Amino acid sequence: MSNDRLARQIAFIVEADKLKAIERRTPLTDRSRQENSAEHSWHMALAAMTLAEYAPADIELRRVLELVTIHDIVEIYAGDTFAYDPDAEAHATKEQRERDAAERIFGLLPGDQAVYFRECWEEFEARQTVNAKYANALDRLQALLQNMQAGGGSWQAHRVQREDVMRRMEPIHATLPELWPFIVEVVDRFCAIGAIET
Amino acid sequence: MSNDRLARQIAFIVEADKLKAIERRTPLTDRSRQENSAEHSWHMALAAMTLAEYAPADIELRRVLELVTIHDIVEIYAGDTFAYDPDAEAHATKEQRERDAAERIFGLLPGDQAVYFRECWEEFEARQTVNAKYANALDRLQALLQNMQAGGGSWQAHRVQREDVMRRMEPIHATLPELWPFIVEVVDRFCAIGAIET
Repeated sequence: MSNDRLARQIAFIVEADKLKAIERRTPLTDRSRQENSAEHSWHMALAAMTLAEYAPADIELRRVLELVTIHDIVEIYAGDTFAYDPDAEAHATKEQRERDAAERIFGLLPGDQAVYFRECWEEFEARQTVNAKYANALDRLQALLQNMQAGGGSWQAHRVQREDVMRRMEPIHATLPELWPFIVEVVDRFCAIGAIET
Repeated sequence: MSNDRLARQIAFIVEADKLKAIERRTPLTDRSRQENSAEHSWHMALAAMTLAEYAPADIELRRVLELVTIHDIVEIYAGDTFAYDPDAEAHATKEQRERDAAERIFGLLPGDQAVYFRECWEEFEARQTVNAKYANALDRLQALLQNMQAGGGSWQAHRVQREDVMRRMEPIHATLPELWPFIVEVVDRFCAIGAIET
């Protein structure tokens, strides 16, 4: 390819294919296998479109969809860190592992785009802007729906505590308050059958 | 759930999980398995962000990302119809199968959203707007990149002819002309090694 800029962009798109091989702890709703981070990201985009009316009025859907599309891509090199991992070291090293991975994956792109994509990822991670808050709430909601449909999913498999689930769901409380009664109802239902520990 | 509107939206998001089980003919780049339509849709969204500078100046990225997110969802009930399927009946029935599927999947949503999502899908399918043209070009490009990285992929597995590949890639020629020399180079390379039939 004579056009170096295009060659770098194609290399980035091709490398991103590896996100389809990053397994999450959450299962598909039919429990046939674990879901991967690429299809999870697509599912969040669909949820972003579907639930926008509950988000703060000043969200910009284009930016939300960009954040959702980018938010897990560093896992290609850093792996998925389980939200409820009791191993403190996994969380302690997560930030540095992901920063190194961001350097590597976004470094494939032309300089201006490396900056743009990295800013998307950092905006999602920082959870400060209204768009990032909505994207993070969707991330939590999508996992809850997977576990709910799969009859317990990663909550049950890893004996997760109610207080940890509730802490994890807090971004939904803060950004999608109209959904909160539904979240509490689901958590209580799974506590009642012992799929979430109390 | 007391809120019927939210209940319908949640039911739609949950049902959409099934797109992760719809297998395409294109493999992952490492050839470990076929890719599915959900992760393919995510990959198109990433490509839409990465290659926007080559698209017509009047595209609206928000709309492109919406079209990409929705474009394959009818496959949940209609299945994936292989682009190079020699069986004319599969293509002849595709339109009706997909219209029935659209009725069913979007019918899960509240009425206003059923209309909105269906319009996204129909806009993508009609390939008339600049956003739909760009989204369709990305659909073709993403499949080409998968086959390229996998050493032939569905071209080789199904003994696809050069003229059929070139016809399939035409939306890239029309909408992303700066990418066309790269497309021709890839197709010629795979013709030379016999992975595309000439």
